[in-house]
Amino acid sequence: MANKNELKTVAGGGLLDRRLFLKKGLYFSAAVLSADALAESEHYRPESSKKAGEPFSNYGLPSEHERKTIRWTMGNSMADGNGVSWTPLQDLEGIITPNGLHFERHHNGVPQIDPKRHQLLIHGMVDKSLLFRVDDLLRYPMTSQLCFIECGGNSNAGWRTEPIQTKLGYFHGMASCSEWTGVPLKLLLDEANIKGRAKWLVAEGADASLMNVSLPLEKALDDCLIALYQNGERIRPENGYPMRLLVPGWEGVLNVKWLRRLHITNRPVMARNETSKYTELMPSGKARQFTFPMEAKSLITSPSFGYRLEEKGLYQISGLAWSGRGKIKKVEVSADGGKSWAKAALQEPVLDKCFTRFRIPWQWNGDKAVLKSRATDETGYVQPERNVLVKERGQHGYFHYNAIVSWKVDSNGEVSHVYA
Amino acid sequence: MANKNELKTVAGGGLLDRRLFLKKGLYFSAAVLSADALAESEHYRPESSKKAGEPFSNYGLPSEHERKTIRWTMGNSMADGNGVSWTPLQDLEGIITPNGLHFERHHNGVPQIDPKRHQLLIHGMVDKSLLFRVDDLLRYPMTSQLCFIECGGNSNAGWRTEPIQTKLGYFHGMASCSEWTGVPLKLLLDEANIKGRAKWLVAEGADASLMNVSLPLEKALDDCLIALYQNGERIRPENGYPMRLLVPGWEGVLNVKWLRRLHITNRPVMARNETSKYTELMPSGKARQFTFPMEAKSLITSPSFGYRLEEKGLYQISGLAWSGRGKIKKVEVSADGGKSWAKAALQEPVLDKCFTRFRIPWQWNGDKAVLKSRATDETGYVQPERNVLVKERGQHGYFHYNAIVSWKVDSNGEVSHVYA
Repeated sequence: MANKNELKTVAGGGLLDRRLFLKKGLYFSAAVLSADALAESEHYRPESSKKAGEPFSNYGLPSEHERKTIRWTMGNSMADGNGVSWTPLQDLEGIITPNGLHFERHHNGVPQIDPKRHQLLIHGMVDKSLLFRVDDLLRYPMTSQLCFIECGGNSNAGWRTEPIQTKLGYFHGMASCSEWTGVPLKLLLDEANIKGRAKWLVAEGADASLMNVSLPLEKALDDCLIALYQNGERIRPENGYPMRLLVPGWEGVLNVKWLRRLHITNRPVMARNETSKYTELMPSGKARQFTFPMEAKSLITSPSFGYRLEEKGLYQISGLAWSGRGKIKKVEVSADGGKSWAKAALQEPVLDKCFTRFRIPWQWNGDKAVLKSRATDETGYVQPERNVLVKERGQHGYFHYNAIVSWKVDSNGEVSHVYA
Repeated sequence: MANKNELKTVAGGGLLDRRLFLKKGLYFSAAVLSADALAESEHYRPESSKKAGEPFSNYGLPSEHERKTIRWTMGNSMADGNGVSWTPLQDLEGIITPNGLHFERHHNGVPQIDPKRHQLLIHGMVDKSLLFRVDDLLRYPMTSQLCFIECGGNSNAGWRTEPIQTKLGYFHGMASCSEWTGVPLKLLLDEANIKGRAKWLVAEGADASLMNVSLPLEKALDDCLIALYQNGERIRPENGYPMRLLVPGWEGVLNVKWLRRLHITNRPVMARNETSKYTELMPSGKARQFTFPMEAKSLITSPSFGYRLEEKGLYQISGLAWSGRGKIKKVEVSADGGKSWAKAALQEPVLDKCFTRFRIPWQWNGDKAVLKSRATDETGYVQPERNVLVKERGQHGYFHYNAIVSWKVDSNGEVSHVYA
């Protein structure tokens, strides 16, 4: 173990300097081998080396030993094809979500679309109505953006009176992060030539629910894409193949999948998913509507609910932070339930409207501890404590839950979810 | 079409300013609809909307309409399990390679490894020999890096006397780019405490070839990782599950998969893959050895061999550039076979030892054209023309081919590979 002086804490509960691991002489849990054990080890010949391996594959899949790392799915029993698949954030590291594990929110299942027959129509308050085949769009100029998509209803279990005891992904996993590549929407809207009075765009998908939603033109002309590629390859069916709308940093529902129509209008369409859903009932009895940007949020992914720390000692706390308003500026971590905080290291690159991975060393002394993380974005917005958020919004808003998450580490090492 | 004045070229053959697409009024190939056609379109109801979609999935896969986007595989008929799978770079966009399409280079197939039984041994010239289980390493501090891996033998068809006529991926596709997350190797080596005279490390895999290779300790202590995650999820079997060595920017063969042993020594082991292979015969009759860093390279991925431009007009040229010595500083594109060059736009983020996507608009007038790209990295190194590279190294070095690639666009729009 390192010289004790090097393990000087920077905040309560054993948090250590975020640059600690640059120092020499720390260790965690490896076995030091005796000469005898070493001799045996050198002769150790693994099973895998005794026979030829499996053949090559045209398209790879995860190891069969990682079968627990899947999207958990939940269907609405009263509406076939309506439901959610969660990203297992507790099992992932880094900032990219692999395509097979990107969260899904479906309104009528996953349509199977023939790209040769799919078309995107832009019409309404435009000088020219335009119809694009997929092959047309593939010829257009493209840009790429690494960014998150988060459902407006993500983390909604946080509004419950009692803290939900479930794996992180099943609580906060309607958020994922990919490199999206596609055609800037502004290019297509400029080509159609929007009439001066137009203010909104209604996007519609080609699924059986013809899911539609309204988007202010100002955002559409700013940074939205008609996304055709996700993490390098063409978008997959459950993420909108052959194309989806990408609305960086705003509610996931706006990122319309299987996009087939953009209707330019002077007012929102008042669709189901912007009136009865994706609006928030406030304590006053009024509802908030069109609350588009996803506020700054952070989560400790390791350790998190369901982990069990085997022994006291040195750990690395790791988590994710993001903001729909820009870059993450700072993430602080507390190991004493919020009494004191220390700055975590942010993994480069730190990008606009993108997952940011944070990490900080922690010396667990075996006592009870409450771990929290708190994100600040470049606008200066600070992720709120739960009691502050509930006081402001009540408990019936359902959407846009972004309070600080607290994990209790018990003296036996078990990690549970608490409101603290 | 835009005002002709806006299409002023910046280099021969129709290359346009890289910021052109920020301007208004350009278009490509969309259909403008008449009132009649529009009415019909509005009533158009796609097949996909007429029935409920498919159920949710725990782990997603690409659309069945994208089945052509696969790794092409080639086995060595004289040595079972020895061969290559190429990344189909011609079908991808952005900088991330999805895990299912990351290139593979195998020496004895893909071992199936039980992570509960796998161990990593560090021994040799160290104070303490250490044995790590996978679970031990998962508790260690981790960092992430977006970086490319490229086989030292990538693009070797370029040494042939006649230009190979094959898809880009089958020529240059032993290069891929991922976000890798793992334990800094320096942490583990510090824990073992290397003896002063040690200069090398011999890394060995757990496959049936027990593939091994030597790495200078200086690099091992700099930026290498024991990688456990690729693009967020645990590394897949064909990429080294449960762990591989990551050696950013250096020859792919050093990134030993199924890593089981690091032997600290004072000299290289002179293994097969650093003597009979991965050395380069020079015109002098001597061979270069331990030529580790992959030099700067760039490729136009669209259009590339096998594309056919349907009509003259505006196109976006798109490609990839990377360097094993740092960041890409500049990519220039020529549409007149190298007589004149224009700077391409570099897609942010531009990262160290990582794929960088470049793009530039091009007005094709329907005549024959030869497209080239030329990368410059932050060290000032400029990707060479093929005749310069061949003059320096001869044609029998096999490895480290990084010359400028030339695509000829014929007047019928067909794209072929030329030496020009």
